[in-house]
Amino acid sequence: MRFKFSILALLLEVSIIVLFGIFAEYDNSIAIETLYPVFQDVHVMIFVGFGFLMTFLKKYGFSSVGINMLIAALGLQWGTLIQGFLHRKAGKIPVNIKSMINADFSTAAALISFGAVLGKTSPLQMLILTVVEVTIFAGNDYLVTEILQATDVGASMTIHAFGAYFGLVVTLVLYRPGLKNKHENEESTYHSDIFAMIGTLFLWLFWPSFNSAIASEPISQFKAIVNTYYSLAACTVATFALSSLVDRRGKFSMVLIQNATLAGGVAVGTCADMPIHPFVAMCIGSMAGIVSVLGYHFLTPFLASKLNIQDTCGVHNLHGLPGILGGIAGIIVTAVKDEAR
Amino acid sequence: MRFKFSILALLLEVSIIVLFGIFAEYDNSIAIETLYPVFQDVHVMIFVGFGFLMTFLKKYGFSSVGINMLIAALGLQWGTLIQGFLHRKAGKIPVNIKSMINADFSTAAALISFGAVLGKTSPLQMLILTVVEVTIFAGNDYLVTEILQATDVGASMTIHAFGAYFGLVVTLVLYRPGLKNKHENEESTYHSDIFAMIGTLFLWLFWPSFNSAIASEPISQFKAIVNTYYSLAACTVATFALSSLVDRRGKFSMVLIQNATLAGGVAVGTCADMPIHPFVAMCIGSMAGIVSVLGYHFLTPFLASKLNIQDTCGVHNLHGLPGILGGIAGIIVTAVKDEAR
Amino acid sequence: MRFKFSILALLLEVSIIVLFGIFAEYDNSIAIETLYPVFQDVHVMIFVGFGFLMTFLKKYGFSSVGINMLIAALGLQWGTLIQGFLHRKAGKIPVNIKSMINADFSTAAALISFGAVLGKTSPLQMLILTVVEVTIFAGNDYLVTEILQATDVGASMTIHAFGAYFGLVVTLVLYRPGLKNKHENEESTYHSDIFAMIGTLFLWLFWPSFNSAIASEPISQFKAIVNTYYSLAACTVATFALSSLVDRRGKFSMVLIQNATLAGGVAVGTCADMPIHPFVAMCIGSMAGIVSVLGYHFLTPFLASKLNIQDTCGVHNLHGLPGILGGIAGIIVTAVKDEAR
Repeated sequence: MRFKFSILALLLEVSIIVLFGIFAEYDNSIAIETLYPVFQDVHVMIFVGFGFLMTFLKKYGFSSVGINMLIAALGLQWGTLIQGFLHRKAGKIPVNIKSMINADFSTAAALISFGAVLGKTSPLQMLILTVVEVTIFAGNDYLVTEILQATDVGASMTIHAFGAYFGLVVTLVLYRPGLKNKHENEESTYHSDIFAMIGTLFLWLFWPSFNSAIASEPISQFKAIVNTYYSLAACTVATFALSSLVDRRGKFSMVLIQNATLAGGVAVGTCADMPIHPFVAMCIGSMAGIVSVLGYHFLTPFLASKLNIQDTCGVHNLHGLPGILGGIAGIIVTAVKDEAR
Repeated sequence: MRFKFSILALLLEVSIIVLFGIFAEYDNSIAIETLYPVFQDVHVMIFVGFGFLMTFLKKYGFSSVGINMLIAALGLQWGTLIQGFLHRKAGKIPVNIKSMINADFSTAAALISFGAVLGKTSPLQMLILTVVEVTIFAGNDYLVTEILQATDVGASMTIHAFGAYFGLVVTLVLYRPGLKNKHENEESTYHSDIFAMIGTLFLWLFWPSFNSAIASEPISQFKAIVNTYYSLAACTVATFALSSLVDRRGKFSMVLIQNATLAGGVAVGTCADMPIHPFVAMCIGSMAGIVSVLGYHFLTPFLASKLNIQDTCGVHNLHGLPGILGGIAGIIVTAVKDEAR
Repeated sequence: MRFKFSILALLLEVSIIVLFGIFAEYDNSIAIETLYPVFQDVHVMIFVGFGFLMTFLKKYGFSSVGINMLIAALGLQWGTLIQGFLHRKAGKIPVNIKSMINADFSTAAALISFGAVLGKTSPLQMLILTVVEVTIFAGNDYLVTEILQATDVGASMTIHAFGAYFGLVVTLVLYRPGLKNKHENEESTYHSDIFAMIGTLFLWLFWPSFNSAIASEPISQFKAIVNTYYSLAACTVATFALSSLVDRRGKFSMVLIQNATLAGGVAVGTCADMPIHPFVAMCIGSMAGIVSVLGYHFLTPFLASKLNIQDTCGVHNLHGLPGILGGIAGIIVTAVKDEAR
């Protein structure tokens, strides 16, 4: 019984190596100079950002960082294969810095879902969830960008909203009445809150790289960097203001500072590479911060008590609602642009 | 009463967005390849470096990282506007990676002042201080670099000394006799000291980027990187030596390792991009480490007890004295160079 | 007596500055664009990676980060000199970004040895050890790469195996029977384990830069990045699987997750820049993870109890065995390549 995890993990790894042996090939057609620093920023977000963001729960600090690492390490290999099959050239999977960025991206959705189910799943279940979700993500991403030719450069919808709602469904499926009593594990301590800020800050700082990494041209990349930078800054000021406003004593809530400050990066994702002007990015960021704070304050307790949806890290408010907001913003911006033509 | 902070923060954010809408414009005339990684290093210093450096105080860990984030997020938006007005082109504020680096820079002075007043100010006061200080900084910086045509590439004087003495004046103004009894909050614990090392190390590692970010040419940028690297290394060895020397039992003092090791980056700032030879950079770095250790050991207790200047994080010894040392070094180097001509 | 450390440190620093004054010269013949971001990654690994990796011991958290910083700051200056003498041009030591990367590299061996002797040596002894080991490393590195013309791009042998076995010899020399009773200091706590994960993750994330930093051409650099990325991912999955397998209750061991996940970066080092195909890199990574877990589980207790080799951080399993594995892999790959010709 206790060998199940080890056996499945080793079987998966052996299968992946065999598939890499048959299909994967170095593809050095893309120069590394520009993309490699951006890849490293995304890489830090996936492992340090997502990993430490979840350490705020006093009992799950080590599993959040550790299992996060396992999911991401497995997911990036599996993601390379699945995305490679969908975009293969002459039957081969080309491996380059861009495919490595996409491999890291494909783990993000699984890591967001992990945030919803943290403390309720075993490592064995997480292995299966990772493989399933990375596969669905790659198919969905292919559908949106290749078949529908839609644009979602920062992946507000395809990563953030998708990962959040996938996680919420899983947490509903895994619901057991007894879990409600485990409530005391879902608390933070002074030090665990500072650990979580490591995750928050590295996500916040490198989000401009996340939203610009797969932009097609330097000019779009530049706009995605600028828009995300100012969206996050505006979101942070709005989050502090709202956090103090909804608190009875006017104090800042740590969980809001850790999470809602990032909503601006999620929400500006879809239209980040469009020429929307920095002030529109700041409007989107401020609104995302406000929506996220209100979600944590009013919606999460409601979902938990009425619908039995227990969202451990509140991914619905950080990735779900801001992701949808980003999708709506993208539709409006595209419509306005078409109108102007 | 308790809504004051929220109302002011939201008012400021709305005003900034309106001003961005009227004046700001994308400026993609500068290529992002070279500057963007340097910008990211500076960005990490501002949010992770300054934020975590102040976590060593056991009671202020969360406020130091959290309020640091608020100040920086507000300050970079305000700094973009004020600096943009001073350097505007055809009535518009150009937004590019270089202006983002300068926006981050303009928050640094406010964050240094925050280190002096940590634990003595409310978030509301910090909002006002940030807006005031970023404005004065931008005016001062314009005066020094545009009107006087002086050079201060690493901003020893314009950021570090300015921020430190601004903070000391504020702490003198805010002085209340009762604060002396709050002494026990100004202590560190084992874990808070390790958290602070996260801040120290990210500042130390990325300081070559800080001092070279706005250098005019690749050759100056290269010299600024080399000089800062060796200045910091020499400063670190000198700090460890002096720290053991001034301790009765020969032990290292954590607060010195966390702070004085960085003085070499401050002091070499003004002349970092000049061809001063690495060994001169190392002399400046060693002297800065020694001055900083002596400042913490002898000057800070004196200022606190005799002049009622309570410098919570000791910014006078990290930014004030080494900043002045950097200014003097810059004057000497320039004089020698003019002599040689 | 208590001034010994300070006097030696200051003497060393003064000597280094004098030697820099006589011999060192700026060399701006190498463009900074491509190499500087890679240098920064390596820089983070040396100071944050190695420093925090050792914080898992509850009593040595501060000395590991602090003394790590001292050793690295001294070692990189000394390494610049010694490596510069061996590669000097017209009697001068050229200082550029590449020599700075090599200076950082030369401290890595000393830091690995420090991991073996942590808690058993004084700062004074570490100063001497650093100077001695950096000198031997530079000579050995010169012998391997210049005289023997062998290739070891990721330095599996010249840094990792060398540093580990050097440290083990020192720990044997320093062995005192009483040290066995100090066992309780060699424990981790909940928070110290999370601090150590900061070190693990920054080493893991930036290892592709470490293994590709001194690769001769962009194409070799690209291969080193890809191979290291997939080797580490495979190593991580294998480590989690093995860690659960060797535990009686099937739980993950924190010390294994912190260390053995990195063995894939060590082992793929020697042949990282060769066209070995990603799947071979993944095989090397998985094997390294398995070897490292088995080393921690079976070999370390044996060495400690039977041979009195007390390896505080288990560097033998992270750097020693995987380093040898990397050397063997390099020999096999070279032999196969020569065969194919």
